[in-house]
Parts: sequence; structure tokens; C-alpha cells
Amino acid sequence: MRLQVPIAKEGVEATVRAVAKTKEEPGAELVEVDPPTPGPGEVLVRVAAASICGTDIHIYNWDEWARSRIRVPQILGHEHAGYIEEVGPEVHHFHPGDYVTAETHIYCGQCYLCHTGAAHICRNLEILGVDRDGTFAEYLVVPESVLWKNDPALPPKVATVMEPFGNSVHVVMRADVPAKTVAITGDGPTGLLAAGVARAAGAASIWLSGLLDARLEMAEALGAHATINAAHDDPVEVVRRGTDGLGADVVLEMSGSPVAIEQALEMVRPGGRIVAFGIPSRPLTLNMADVVFKEVQVLGVVGRRIFSTWHEAARFLPHVDVARVVTDTYPLDEWQLGMERAVRREAVKVVLYPGGQ
Amino acid sequence: MRLQVPIAKEGVEATVRAVAKTKEEPGAELVEVDPPTPGPGEVLVRVAAASICGTDIHIYNWDEWARSRIRVPQILGHEHAGYIEEVGPEVHHFHPGDYVTAETHIYCGQCYLCHTGAAHICRNLEILGVDRDGTFAEYLVVPESVLWKNDPALPPKVATVMEPFGNSVHVVMRADVPAKTVAITGDGPTGLLAAGVARAAGAASIWLSGLLDARLEMAEALGAHATINAAHDDPVEVVRRGTDGLGADVVLEMSGSPVAIEQALEMVRPGGRIVAFGIPSRPLTLNMADVVFKEVQVLGVVGRRIFSTWHEAARFLPHVDVARVVTDTYPLDEWQLGMERAVRREAVKVVLYPGGQ
Amino acid sequence: MRLQVPIAKEGVEATVRAVAKTKEEPGAELVEVDPPTPGPGEVLVRVAAASICGTDIHIYNWDEWARSRIRVPQILGHEHAGYIEEVGPEVHHFHPGDYVTAETHIYCGQCYLCHTGAAHICRNLEILGVDRDGTFAEYLVVPESVLWKNDPALPPKVATVMEPFGNSVHVVMRADVPAKTVAITGDGPTGLLAAGVARAAGAASIWLSGLLDARLEMAEALGAHATINAAHDDPVEVVRRGTDGLGADVVLEMSGSPVAIEQALEMVRPGGRIVAFGIPSRPLTLNMADVVFKEVQVLGVVGRRIFSTWHEAARFLPHVDVARVVTDTYPLDEWQLGMERAVRREAVKVVLYPGGQ
Amino acid sequence: MRLQVPIAKEGVEATVRAVAKTKEEPGAELVEVDPPTPGPGEVLVRVAAASICGTDIHIYNWDEWARSRIRVPQILGHEHAGYIEEVGPEVHHFHPGDYVTAETHIYCGQCYLCHTGAAHICRNLEILGVDRDGTFAEYLVVPESVLWKNDPALPPKVATVMEPFGNSVHVVMRADVPAKTVAITGDGPTGLLAAGVARAAGAASIWLSGLLDARLEMAEALGAHATINAAHDDPVEVVRRGTDGLGADVVLEMSGSPVAIEQALEMVRPGGRIVAFGIPSRPLTLNMADVVFKEVQVLGVVGRRIFSTWHEAARFLPHVDVARVVTDTYPLDEWQLGMERAVRREAVKVVLYPGGQ
Repeated sequence: MRLQVPIAKEGVEATVRAVAKTKEEPGAELVEVDPPTPGPGEVLVRVAAASICGTDIHIYNWDEWARSRIRVPQILGHEHAGYIEEVGPEVHHFHPGDYVTAETHIYCGQCYLCHTGAAHICRNLEILGVDRDGTFAEYLVVPESVLWKNDPALPPKVATVMEPFGNSVHVVMRADVPAKTVAITGDGPTGLLAAGVARAAGAASIWLSGLLDARLEMAEALGAHATINAAHDDPVEVVRRGTDGLGADVVLEMSGSPVAIEQALEMVRPGGRIVAFGIPSRPLTLNMADVVFKEVQVLGVVGRRIFSTWHEAARFLPHVDVARVVTDTYPLDEWQLGMERAVRREAVKVVLYPGGQ
Repeated sequence: MRLQVPIAKEGVEATVRAVAKTKEEPGAELVEVDPPTPGPGEVLVRVAAASICGTDIHIYNWDEWARSRIRVPQILGHEHAGYIEEVGPEVHHFHPGDYVTAETHIYCGQCYLCHTGAAHICRNLEILGVDRDGTFAEYLVVPESVLWKNDPALPPKVATVMEPFGNSVHVVMRADVPAKTVAITGDGPTGLLAAGVARAAGAASIWLSGLLDARLEMAEALGAHATINAAHDDPVEVVRRGTDGLGADVVLEMSGSPVAIEQALEMVRPGGRIVAFGIPSRPLTLNMADVVFKEVQVLGVVGRRIFSTWHEAARFLPHVDVARVVTDTYPLDEWQLGMERAVRREAVKVVLYPGGQ
Repeated sequence: MRLQVPIAKEGVEATVRAVAKTKEEPGAELVEVDPPTPGPGEVLVRVAAASICGTDIHIYNWDEWARSRIRVPQILGHEHAGYIEEVGPEVHHFHPGDYVTAETHIYCGQCYLCHTGAAHICRNLEILGVDRDGTFAEYLVVPESVLWKNDPALPPKVATVMEPFGNSVHVVMRADVPAKTVAITGDGPTGLLAAGVARAAGAASIWLSGLLDARLEMAEALGAHATINAAHDDPVEVVRRGTDGLGADVVLEMSGSPVAIEQALEMVRPGGRIVAFGIPSRPLTLNMADVVFKEVQVLGVVGRRIFSTWHEAARFLPHVDVARVVTDTYPLDEWQLGMERAVRREAVKVVLYPGGQ
Repeated sequence: MRLQVPIAKEGVEATVRAVAKTKEEPGAELVEVDPPTPGPGEVLVRVAAASICGTDIHIYNWDEWARSRIRVPQILGHEHAGYIEEVGPEVHHFHPGDYVTAETHIYCGQCYLCHTGAAHICRNLEILGVDRDGTFAEYLVVPESVLWKNDPALPPKVATVMEPFGNSVHVVMRADVPAKTVAITGDGPTGLLAAGVARAAGAASIWLSGLLDARLEMAEALGAHATINAAHDDPVEVVRRGTDGLGADVVLEMSGSPVAIEQALEMVRPGGRIVAFGIPSRPLTLNMADVVFKEVQVLGVVGRRIFSTWHEAARFLPHVDVARVVTDTYPLDEWQLGMERAVRREAVKVVLYPGGQ
């Protein structure tokens, strides 16, 4: 990212507005920067919608992880949808005007993990908005290799959510839910969407535990059969009672909360599976003997499979009300309103419109 | 178990010698008891060989777990091999004289877990030597449903090890090792045998880390390509160096040591699998974020699949030098010598001969 | 089966009415027989409902397969639901009055296949109505080991269909359908129910091809997104057109028709899966090179997993309108009306009420 | 391929010698052609060794399949190893001098199959020596995306066999052989190598059936526990006898012979798996009812997974004596001697040295 200093308001052609972290401290600011240029194998995307994810909040808050990983100046954001404005040399499959969302994990294609079907955990991964300039901007450069063509009928505010929706799809597909009892811990956007995907994928019963009643209602609207406000009721007890004391076949841990992870291990049945997606902020205490004695499988899941999960997500779209999690939309100028609402968990998913609504 | 008091030395017909925990305190003693009688669906086994397992040591030492689980008086032991002496009513498939080893997890056959192929973690499990009288005795009663017919060519001192060997087979089969790099943490009998099974099952490279040089030599004799004395070298570093910095495809955690579990998570490659068999004595601290970010699978494994694992174990027998782990044999009278050698880790696997050698 | 000759109309206590094949020729007849007595481990079931399956039609028609397999006299039928009237000795988990359906594959529990989770293809299998007296009778003896407790709320006419419903569930679970495109060939009861299960299990699109418009309508009511009358349209072409020319991810072959099997291979996508459940009456010509070049998986499926599939089926019950396939019900006396309607494919699933409606 | 006419013998710089099909009739000829030039993303490889595969024989013989698929003029061959001579623009990961073998299936990277981990059956596949100029030539152009870096210690005559060795690895890995009984039908190079891989991967017993005693001896040297000359003995009977009448857990069908495919279905146990790699030249008659009743899995397998199988193959290399199947080596000029020996099955694997030995 090359900052324009002083910021010359010359219009889109000359400069590009973006939300960037410019100093090693909490916060971010709206800046104007030189328009990026697509190199060989790259395209320039005009961003129609971008959405705020937990990762962006970590960076905004400048927490321990962010301090260790982020180099300033850096444009924030990775979730997005937009239109190809320009293609660089050696781009073979995409064209100006294509309506796209990019997988935000840019992979090398040559390492052992890329070679063996795990490009989303590539050894040389670059993540948009983390390792290179992100999507909270009017324009964005990404390699063709991570582009996904959206259905033109999909509104940008839903297309930008394809990425976290893909997280939820990845989690549910690893859990193998048809005819299974499923407990979900966490009421963030990926937890809520996981309830919707689990329902669409044939789960026999779905409990979702969280802390905010409004989100629990949303979970039921999306497909949970029952919800548990963990501030008032014990999720372990509720799930056990609903499974004849056995525990759930599958637990989707979507919160990263140490308490929820402990509950996940208690509420999963012997021989059951925990899919762990939430990221705890520090090492936690785990009753590992239970993992062994109960013969539990704990599957860590991150990102999405490139592009298997994208195809699955596209196929689940008609069956899951993804738009429901988008509670807030703002023009780029008002990004900070949205960010603050996300930080305070008042908004579920905040969408920014860099080109205006 | 019904104790004979006073102990009348009348011979095998009248009483049966056994090693039992008779008081709620450390230790055990040789006692004489009434011979057990097989009920419907049960058989009486004359024990030819029995072997000492970590579980027996916990009970002998009367640790926290033992205090919470064991009711005295209780005959110890679960590993064994012997000959059917007598069959009770409604026994249909076994006969006096059959040379057998019993799966030590007695399952109900009716619960959800038994119904779905997981009888070894049955909701109503009874374990020999833990929940009912065990195998450190001249005679033993077990239900027909857990009997396994041994190859007559197999010496009792190996047949009694079929049960921990089955643990190792179960672990390796869950790990899916052909063409994989495999790290094993732990130099107990199941860890050592796991090295042998992993080698027989086509692992590309096998590292085993432990603390006792004699056992590390045994690991190499059994099939490990390399060993690491964790007192002197860092297993994580050695495994990473041997895998181009990537980490091992699979880690078999066979120790239960918190340090080893932490190492397992560090030495497994992204997308890799940890099979957790060792049982830590208390909750431990785990960097769960690594499980997620590295998309690691942690599979708890306990016991053996009934009887899939037994068939697999029988097929691996010609390819793994199981007898090598039997370092000590004693007549039943001298059980305490063996137990003390096991407690001090001087012996690897101790075999007792209730009928004399 | 011991025939009562001459038939003494003494009431239920003295004799039992049953539909039996008594001569080695087409047809069957209503007979009265001695009431069966449960031996050790067995129960006597008063049959509340029994239903007609394709196997019964083969036996009724006395086709080549039936001539080679059936020994007369033999009571027909295997699908059923009823109440335990009496328990024999050594029955531990069921009681008089229990509302049950029996898995119709009686397994030995001791062979390699029983030992390794495949009891439904046991080497010593006995099938109700094929190898021993069946369910088209007022009373029936079955071993406790195959009993399944029904939900009391389930009407007998649905509970008797649990067995073919289980076939459909087994097929769909082997196909792994969430987010998949699914083509089903065959409009018999198991094909129709498979459409319902595939929908409940999250299939992205479901085509069902058959020959009878009334059944195709039923398929759509049960969950198929589209149907194809193979007499008028080419299923291969329709499925390809609906999958961008690629073919379906999964084909469920539920007819046994050679033409449909050929179509299945043409309509499945490269890398896709065919689950083969329909049984062709003779060897057929297959383009095996396509199996290889397209890297297709062909999975034969028979019966149901004992009891995994039963649990899954119970969990799918609220989501699939199983009752819809029961088009005809008759008292046992009028069994032949039902059989003839089934033979002519006018009825979908015929239920008989041995105790009257 | 642009033929040089008249052929000007100007040396390697000016023209390139190659074995090509130039007329739509049986045979092939040594020609001189313009040296190929690598385009963007492509490299020029100097071929050190190339080997003859069954596909080449089909094309040489100009059989029905070849007539339908091949357009002349066309340079033959796909198996090879060589050195990068020159890299085109936009080549990022390979350099002149690299010692490489190319995966011979050139994939598009954009279709549904490439997107979902099945690039080896890409919808837009181009195969070397089939759809574009092949490897029986001094120089070859291939895209960087299919290059595999060989271990420098591997002689070219083994490195060229990595491709069929990869077939065998792919087959065995789909079969999941540890502790399994394995029957292999077919004594061609991939069948023989499959015996070696199955042994290395932990198969409990391996039978290989074929027609040539010399090859059966080679099979035993590579790892088969027993071999069957199908001209004299019935493989089905031998395998059944060796498996207590049950049949083999897994059958690897490596011949494409209709008789062998029928045998495979008879010799596989109920619930077992057939991996079908051999390609029958025409549709064949199959007892599909057996596939269903025995619940057999038939998995078609073609090519190799890109690059999972290559990594696995590299890891199996130290454990399988691949060089043993190379029975014949010739300079390119004498290609026809080798081809004729291959056609008559006198040679197992024929290696050509375009640069001389």
C-alpha cells in the first residue's frame, strides 16, 4: 500500500479510498492511496461490498495476535464481492466485468500442502487484509488463481458473506451431519450460519448455545431446533437431556471461548466428533483424558477448501437464509460506525459499500 | 470375589489363588478364593498367562483414579490367555479345551454405542480387573461374547499380550500410515509395539521418542527408523528437521505425558493427525489455537474394536516381534517382584504364569 | 412350519393363520399351522402389520431365484411390526408387550463379517420368509438379537415399512449426499423413499426416473426436485442437461433394470458414485472401461446395517413421509388381492393386517 | 508437431528426432521435426529416458480406440524423465537444469473436477502422446503446472517409470491394504509394481495371477506372497482356499481382461473392494447381482492424483524394487525393437534413451 500524502481528492481514477491501519496502535483510518495495478496473473477488482470479520476486529483493536502479525501501513478486510475492472497479463480465465469474490487465502500451488489438496493451509499462505492489502477499499488486486465467479443474481451484500458462509459449510461438511444430533457453541455469524447449513444438510436435531437472545432467535430462524442462553442455562445439561444422557453426535465449536470448548468436550457423546473452528486467544486447560476415554475426534478446521467448499456453499445458498445475518450496511465513509457496532456485538455481520449503496 | 477366610490350602479344586486388592490402600496380596462358576453364556477359563498393564499399576498404587473407581475386594488384571475349563448353559460357539484370550471390555450389546459399531466404548461397559474380578488368578469367568480363539501355535506369553498389541494396532489403523511420516511419543509397551505395527503397515519413516535408552533400542529393533531420547534431544526439532520443517503427517501419542502431548501438537504437520492413546493423569494446558490454525485432527483412541482390531492384530502378528516386549516372566507367587519391576519401569511387559511356567 | 392337516378352526390359541408356499409352483395359500414356540433367546411376536416386498413377489411367482432358494412348506414375508406375546428363556432385554419390528437378517455373530461390523452380510445369514418362516402370519418367532423397539406413536402400517425404509436410508447414507446432485433410477418403494431420504439429507438436486406417472408424482411429493418418465424422455440427457453436461455426483440405482444400470453409468459424473441396490435378474453387459476412465465408484448395497441404519432411519422418520408409499391395506384373508396388485405394480406398498385392521 | 520435409540432418539444434505416427495405419516411424518452443508457463525438456506403455501399443497397433482418438501426425509416448533445457515466460518455480518428470495429464485448473481435487480426470484433459506431442523424442514441451522434481539420485530409467509406478501406488492407496488379504489379477508392469506397493503398504497376504511364469517370478521378487498361473490353476479357487473360503478383502484388477474381471468379482469377499485399473477393450458381461448381494465396492482408478500420488510414490521408492520391471533398454533409433518386444509381451517395461545410453 502506498499512501498518498497529502491526500489529493482527485477522484477514483487518481486515488482510491481505503480503510487502513497506518499506525501501530488501536484504530484505523480512511485514507486515499494510489490505485493498485494488476501484475501478471492478477486482476483489479472494483469492490462492490466488503464485510467485517472477527479478524478485522482483532487488527482494529490491535491485540496481541495483531501486533505480532500485522505490518503497517495495511489496508484492512478480506470478505468482499466486486467486479473485475482490469486484467493483468497472463490472465486466462477471467475477464473485465466478471462478478467475483476472491478466496482470501492466496496459496503458492507448489508446497506439499498445495500438492496434496490442502492449499487453504499452504505453507506460504498470504491472507488478504493480513499479509497484503485488503478489501475495505474501492479497488483491490488479487491473483486469478483465487477468483470465484458469483451468480449474477446474488446481491453483493450476500456475495461478500460467501467467505464466512464457506467457513460454516466447511465446518458442517467435516462434521458429517445427516441423521446426527448436533450441538453448536457460539452465536457469531459463522455459528449462526452453521446452524442453517446443518439444518440443510440433514441434521436430526440442532442445539445452539450463545449469550445474546436476539442471536438465538436468529439461530432458530436459520434452522436450529433449539437454543440455549448459556448465561441462564447449562448447555451441557440441556444437550444431555435431549440425547437420553448420551451427548451429541457432533459438536461444532464456533466461539473460541475456553468455557465453550470445555462444554463441547462434556456434551459430545463417546465416539463423537468436535469440529473446532473458534480460536481461543490463549492456551487453555483441557481434560485430555476425556478425549481418550470417550474416543472423541477433535477436528480443527480453518478457512475453506479451495474450491470444493465454494461449490458446496453455492449449492447450499438456496437452502440457507444467508442474508439474515447481515444486520448492518454502511457506505465506506461510515466504516467506523459499523466497526464499533461489530466490536460491541450489536451488529451480527456488517457490510460496507465502497462504491456507495 | 468371595474371599476364603481362613484360607484353606486344599488345592485347585477347592480354592483358587489370585492377586487381589483387599483393602483401600496401596498394594495387593495373594489370596485364595472360591472357584468362580460360569453362569448362562459364560465360560470358566484356566489362566495360562496374564500380564501387567499400566491400569494394574494405577490400582496397585491406589492413585486418585483407582480410589474413585475400584471397589474392594477385587482380583486384579485383565491381560491374559488360557484354556476353557468349563462352559455354562447357553454357550454356543466355544468348548472346553479352546485356547482363548478374552477382550477385556465386556459390552451390553444393546446400547446406542453397541448398536453402531462402538461396543468397546459401550455405555454399560464392565472391564475385567476394574469393574469385575480379573485375570491375575488361576481361574477366570468371562462371557462367551468377548472370547477370541488364539492360534494354538502362539505361546501364552505372547497371547496374553494380544490385548495391548491390539491397542497399538487400533492406534496405528486409526492413523492410516502407509507412505506417511510417523512420530511416536512414549516408550511404554504400546508405544514400542506401535512402532512395530506402523513399520509393518507401510509408514515411510518412524521416529519414537522416550526416556530409556534400552527401550529406544527395542523400538529400533521393532521397526522405528530413528529414536530420540527426550532427556537429551528435543523431539520436535528432530522430527521437523527430518520432515523438511513441515512436521510429521501423523503423531501417535502413547505416553499420556503433558509434555509429550504439547510436543505432539508442535511436531505434527498442518493438516496432520494426532492419535491420542496415552491418558494424562489430570487436565492439561493445550494450545487449542494451533489445533484450529493447523487444522489438526486429534483422535482419541481407547481399547480395541471388537473384533475388527483382533483380526487385524492376528494378521500383523507374523510381521511384528511382539515377544520382544516381554522382558520378565514370573510364577503367580512372585507377582510382586514383577509388579515392582513394572512400577519402576525396569521391566517392559511382565507376564505372570498362574499355573507355573 | 408345521401344517395343520386337516385345518382345525379352533381359534388363535390352537392354530395360527399364515400365507405359505406349500407347493413347488407359482402361488401361495392361506393355511393354519401350529403356533410357533420361542426357544432360548427367542420371542413370540403377534404380528400387527406385515408388508409385501419384491422378494415375496419372486417367491410367489416361483421364478428361477425362488426355485433355487426356497424350500416348501414356508411361510412368506419379512417386513412386519407387532407386539411381543411371549419371551423364551435367556431373553434379557425385551418383554411381553414391547412394540417391535425385527431386522429380517438373522446373523450368527461369530463369523468374520459379524466380527467386523458387517452382520447384515453374515456368512451364515438366515432371512425371514426366505430361509425360515416369515411374517405373513398371526404369530412369528424371532431371536431377540434382531429386535428393534418401535416408537409407540408409529402406526403399525408405517412401522412395517421401517425395513424397506432402512434400505433407502442405507443407500443414501452410502452415497453421502449433502450438497450433491443426485439421480435415482427406479420408482419402486425403495426408490421413492430414497428420494425422500436424499432430500432430508441435504441433496442439492434430486432427479428420479421411472415408468409410472403416478409414482413420479409421489416421488416429487416425497422430495424429488424433478422426475423423468423414462418411457418418454432420456434420463441421461435430462440429468446431463441439469448438471452443465457433467453428470450427477451420485446415482442411486434402485431398479435392477439393465437399461437403468447402463444409464446410471452414463449419467454419473467422472469421479462420481453409483450406489447399486436394484438386483438384475441375470448377468448384464457393462461398459467397464467407463468405470475405469471416469474413475467411478460402484457400491453394492444390500439390507441395512444392524443397527446403525435403524437408528438413522428412526431419525429420518420425522422428515420423510413414509406413510405415503403405503397405497393398499388388506386383512390377511385378502392377502392375494394385495399380492396381485403388487405384482401388477398397481400398488406401491401393500400392507397386510394379520389381526384385522 | 511440424514435420521437417525433406528431413534435413542438421543436428540437434536444428531438428529433433522423434517417434511419430504419421499415417492413419498401424506402425510409426522415426522422424525429424522442428524443435518445439516453450510458450508462457511452459518448459522445454531434454528427454533422458522414455518408456513404452500399453497406451503406446494401442496407438502403434492402430486399434479401434486409437483410430477414434488420435490425430496424425503425432509424436508418441508419455512416460519420461529429463532435464529442463529452457523455460518460457511466466515460469516461476522451475529452472534450466532441473531433473524432472512430468505428470502426463495436463489439466485446466478451472473445471469442477480440477476445483474439487480431481485434476487427473479434468474435463479438459490433454494427455501427452495422445492429445499433444509426446515423449518419444529428444525434446518435449510441457507446462510447468505438471512438473515433478526428481531426486537426482534416481537413474532416468527408473524416473521414467514413476508414472506407471504412480498408477500402482494410486491403485493400492485406494484399496487400503494394511492387514488385508489382497489378490491382484494381471502380470503387466502396473500389476507387478502393485504387488510391490501392496507389500510395502502392509498387506497381510498377496496373490498375483497372470499368464507368464517369468513375470510371476518377478511378482514374488517384488513382494507377492504367492502367484497363480491362470493358464494352469483357477485363481478364484486358490484365493478362496487361502482365505478360509471367504475371498480376498481386496482385489486389484490390473489386466482389463474380461475373464479376470469376472474372477475378481468371484474372489472378492462379501463387503470387499475391487479396484479396477485394467481397461477392457469392449463392454463385458458382469454378474451385477453379485456386486449388490455381496455388497462389493468397485472403484475405477485411472492415472494418478496430482500430486498426492507422486509424493506417496516417492516415499514408496525405497521400499519397492521398481528397476526390476525395466527389462529392456534401447537408444531411440532402435525404438521399434523395443516396441515389438513389448507388443509380444517379451519385455516387461521397455525404456528408450533419446540421447543415447
